[in-house]
Order: sequence, then C-alpha cells, then structure tokens
Amino acid sequence: MATPNNSFIRPYLITRSLQPENQETPIKFMNTPNITDRLFFRRNHFSYPTLQFSHYWLPVHGLVQNPTLFTLQDLLRFPSKTFKVVLECAGNQRSKFEPKVFGEQWEKGAISQGEWKGVPLKTLLTHVGMKDGAKEIVFEAYDYGSRTDSDQIHTFARSLPLEKALHPDTIIAYEYNQKPIPFKHGYPLRLIVPQWYAMASVKWIKQIKVIDSKFTGPFQTTDYVYYPEQEGDKNSFPVTAIHVNSIIQKPLDMDTLNTGIHSIHGIAWTGKGQISKVEISTDNGSTWTLAKLGHYSGDRYGWIPWSYQWTVTKKGEYTIMSKATDSENRTQPEAAFWNRKGYGYNAIDIIKVRVE
Amino acid sequence: MATPNNSFIRPYLITRSLQPENQETPIKFMNTPNITDRLFFRRNHFSYPTLQFSHYWLPVHGLVQNPTLFTLQDLLRFPSKTFKVVLECAGNQRSKFEPKVFGEQWEKGAISQGEWKGVPLKTLLTHVGMKDGAKEIVFEAYDYGSRTDSDQIHTFARSLPLEKALHPDTIIAYEYNQKPIPFKHGYPLRLIVPQWYAMASVKWIKQIKVIDSKFTGPFQTTDYVYYPEQEGDKNSFPVTAIHVNSIIQKPLDMDTLNTGIHSIHGIAWTGKGQISKVEISTDNGSTWTLAKLGHYSGDRYGWIPWSYQWTVTKKGEYTIMSKATDSENRTQPEAAFWNRKGYGYNAIDIIKVRVE
Repeated sequence: MATPNNSFIRPYLITRSLQPENQETPIKFMNTPNITDRLFFRRNHFSYPTLQFSHYWLPVHGLVQNPTLFTLQDLLRFPSKTFKVVLECAGNQRSKFEPKVFGEQWEKGAISQGEWKGVPLKTLLTHVGMKDGAKEIVFEAYDYGSRTDSDQIHTFARSLPLEKALHPDTIIAYEYNQKPIPFKHGYPLRLIVPQWYAMASVKWIKQIKVIDSKFTGPFQTTDYVYYPEQEGDKNSFPVTAIHVNSIIQKPLDMDTLNTGIHSIHGIAWTGKGQISKVEISTDNGSTWTLAKLGHYSGDRYGWIPWSYQWTVTKKGEYTIMSKATDSENRTQPEAAFWNRKGYGYNAIDIIKVRVE
Repeated sequence: MATPNNSFIRPYLITRSLQPENQETPIKFMNTPNITDRLFFRRNHFSYPTLQFSHYWLPVHGLVQNPTLFTLQDLLRFPSKTFKVVLECAGNQRSKFEPKVFGEQWEKGAISQGEWKGVPLKTLLTHVGMKDGAKEIVFEAYDYGSRTDSDQIHTFARSLPLEKALHPDTIIAYEYNQKPIPFKHGYPLRLIVPQWYAMASVKWIKQIKVIDSKFTGPFQTTDYVYYPEQEGDKNSFPVTAIHVNSIIQKPLDMDTLNTGIHSIHGIAWTGKGQISKVEISTDNGSTWTLAKLGHYSGDRYGWIPWSYQWTVTKKGEYTIMSKATDSENRTQPEAAFWNRKGYGYNAIDIIKVRVE
C-alpha cells in the first residue's frame, strides 16, 4: 500500500454565495504572479449568462460615425497589448468594516491578478469615429436578473468617462494567461480597466455604446458609489481607482510560532502610480521598518510582493502590521473610510501571533 | 458556441492552513446528510503519514491476556455496526470567542457527518481479554511531528476511559459512506467515538494499548483541555462530549432580502441524548418560536435539519437567532464558555439581514 505525498494539499476558493456565484481567492496561500482560472475570485451579480451564438459580434455604436459589428477575428487583427493587472472587487474586505455593512462579506480574497491581452478600446473607438458631444462609453454585458431594490429585470452595464475609455491601456481583452478568457471571467470579451476596482472591467461584453450624457444604470449610480452617511446620499461619489493597500499573507492571524527567525510576507498594490514602500510593525504600530520590496512582474498594474525577516527571541504576543505607500504619496490609513455599502477597504493590515 | 449551465457552481473547502492541512467544510451550503470526501473538513496536527506496508496489522496489546495482531480481514469477519456520526472539531467556531484565542481560526465548518462502519472496539477488547487493573485504552496514530511547545517529536495519540471504550457504539471503522475510509480521514482504520469531539476519533490507527494508568500525552493533557483562566491550569478539565449546538445555514449573515416569505434553515446536534427542540428568534432574542425539526437519518449521532418559514412584511434590519435544546435539557447559552484554547464553542447562532 502506498499513500499520496503532501503535494496533493491545495487551497480552494472560499464560497460566499452560490446564487449568484461569489467565491474568493485563498489569497493568503497564493505566491504566484498569475492566478489560475481555478482560484481566480468569482464575483457575480446574476446567474451566468447563457451564450448561444455560432458567431460572436461586438457592436460598437451610438454617437459614432461608423457603427460597426466587430468579429473576434477583426479584434485579433488589431495591434494588441498585454498587461499583468490586479482585479480587486470594490467590496474586498467588506467584512472588516465597523460598524458592519450589508452585502457579500468578503474577507481579503476578492482580488486576483494575471495577464490580460486585448485590443485597446481607443483603437475601436478611433475606428468607428466618435461624434462631437460624446461623453461616456457604456458597456452592456450578457448577464441580467433581478435586484432586491427593484421590480425590474436589469442587465449588468457600466460606463466609463471618455478620459478613462481613451486611456491607451484600457483594453477589450480576449485572452487571460495566454488562453481564451475562462467563461466565468468574461469569455469571449472582457473590458479590462487597469487600476480601477473590478466592477469597471465588464465581463461578457454584449455591446459598446457611445452616449452624450451620464449613464444612470443601477450598477453605476446606486451600487459602486461611496455613501459616507448611514442614511441618504449626502456627499456620495463614485467608486473608481483602487486604494493603496497591502495584506500580510504569512504568518496567519492568531498563529503560534517558535522563537527564531520568521519570514513575514505579503503583497501590496495601488490604483495610482506604483507602490513606493511597505512598512512593517511588529510592536502594534509603535515602530515601523521598511519591508523588502520584490519586483513588479512587467508593468505596474499588478501587485508587488514584499517580505520582512523577523527575528524574535522573546516569548509573548505580538501585533504585526503592514502599511503600503504609493508614488502618489497615498498611505494606508489606520481605519478605512467607512461607507454604507462597504467599498474600498484599505486599512493597515493587522494580525496577531503568539511566540512560545 | 455553448456555455455551461449553472449546475457547475459548487462550494469548496475553506483553507485555514496547508502545513499541516486544515480546511473546513462549507457547512452553510451543505444540505446533504452524508458529506463526501471532497468536502469533509480536514484537521491535522502534522503532515500526512507515509503508510508503506504490504499487509496492515493492528496490534492490540498491553494489559491483556492475548496480545493480538489483527489483519483487516480479521476485522471484517467480526459483526459490524454502521452509524451516521457527526464529527466536530473541538475548536469549531474558535474564531468567535471574545476575547480572541490563539489556534486555528475555524468558523462554522469544522464539522461533517457521514456513515461510518466498523467493528465495536468492545469486540476486540473482549477478544484479547483485558487484565485486572486496566484503566484506559490508548490509540496511537501513524502521524507525528513537532510541536511549538516542545523540542521533541510527538506522535498523535489519545486515550479513552474504559467506560467509553467499552460503549457498544465506539467502533474501529474501516468504511466511510460504503467505501474504504478516504486516506485523509484515517485509512485504513479510524477510531470513531460518537458524541465526543472529533479529537477522540483517532485516524490512521497504528496500535491500541491497554494501560493501568492515566495517559499523559500532549494531545491528552496539554491540548483538548478546557482552561477557563487566561493563565494557568486552575479549574481545567478535559474536552469530551459535544455541546448542544445549532447553526443557521440560510439566510447568510448580512444578506439583503425582499419582503415576503423566506425559509430560515440550518442544523442542530448534540453529544448527549438527542435534539429535542430548536427555537428561532427574528427579533434579536425578544421572542422565540419553535422551528420545524426534520428527521434524524437513522440513529441519533448525526445532526438534525430544522427549518422555519419566516413571513416578513416590514422593511428594516433583523437579527435572527437559533437556539437548540437537547433531551438532557442542555440549551445553547447566549455566550459560549470562554476557555483559553477555544474549545466547545456553542453560543446561540446569530445573523443579521436587511429586508428591503
């Protein structure tokens, strides 16, 4: 009789809900720059769409000179761009807000990254020729369903302002990690908006429309809006760029360690510029030391690994923190900006360990 | 092009650690009486053992008349018993203790159940003939490794007092759900002690020894002991029978629902007697109503499903609680009995939902 070795131990997605499917990446156990389909977090508002077509057409129309139906072959003929991009759900770490907020109780794993390849949206928009007065670009997806706050059926749809739509790195992606995009992540075409929270990166694109007004779908003006007040819309503003952030992957919270040397490590990321430093405290925030930054793999739209070698000789309990700062001089705050729907959590990460 | 339908959405184990492997069952999404190997929680103190033998022998020796090496064939020839048994890790829900305690931060899923088949331990002990003065039966497992609180290598080993060892339903199991026990859950032989926390149900049994004293291995006298004090051993006592308990599986905590009729459902279980009632409160504990109990499938060592039809017409926030009582008149407390290592959590289960 033989037994399997320990290499058959692996982490899995963490289920938040199944209808629709919302599962997070076991991010604490990930040390790869490309998250595979199997472990890429899944965030859906509705059931998966049923896509039944023998030929896929992407309509780009609205306020344009030449409304066009692009085929996949058309898209493949344009010059492509490839980026390693962090996709982070705006609700990532929602479970950590105090007071608690309603919605999917994501812990730290509504985030993944990998290599997205596609054609710049700007290329398509140039091709069809936007007319004067164009203000926003609307991306309608194939998924649809009901919402608890409405009696109607809604399609997932989001818009981008012209400036972001025309950014040369905003792409209509057709590949993820050198393969067609996995179905659950937007096959065949997904908008990829680097540096914005992932609600902007619309999956299963059905059509792209240029409009001369502000788009007001519920996923634009009800959800994905920061509401700083417990009630009402006062001072609300839209969710856009990812906040500067970091998490500790190891040790695990409430772990017990021996005295000696331990590697504290994790990842850091931002939606503006790039990470300039990560600081670590092992004394509950009294003193801070620079962690060693790893390397961005390629561009600056991914996360960066960091590590810190901790020598601990005294037994006892320790509170360990990580704090990232980006090139725009944004730093993780002690407490995240509380908002009613729980978006953009980015407080300094904290764990506790006992050394014995 | 065709797309997969929604039946390919499934939950996964929730990873707590990989070295050793500790992963919990996505219990909130389970409504089956037999948890499969794939989703059965995994709780290990060490790496998986390497079992290399062409023939498996189970030694039963120590203070006995006829020390015997049993083969698997020997065991299969004895009359067998089959039970549906809840196995719950003593540390299940440890993450909910306040103040927080060190150790694996289990949520609600360090619990599973299924059908275990084997030969009563009593049969084997009768076969070998215990001598006078026999006091405890020690079960040594094949897994071993280091502990943070010791410089030595330890083998996982636990003992049972005679009374529990001779209980006719304490079995040496060789099948789980009509198949050989899955390797990660104790293949080829696992002790199954119904109604006790699962540390008692020793996996990968290497040998059984009858002794005339109290066994003092670290998994008997250091771990799996209730320490009520923050420091020191005062008033400590061993972890044995499972506390009366229940959890709400649906709705999920911090869910948003519509007005209307909703099914609140979950499971309840106990280590003494059987569940006699489950009460539900939808007003933060002010009033309680009986839930509808399902049926035990077979014996009373499993969990029992319960449900409650909730009609809600008024919008707002609701705190929903479930509280089980067993036939020994034990009821879930408002706060669990705090103990330093975080065992036996069984407070009334609480979730919050918003109705809109």
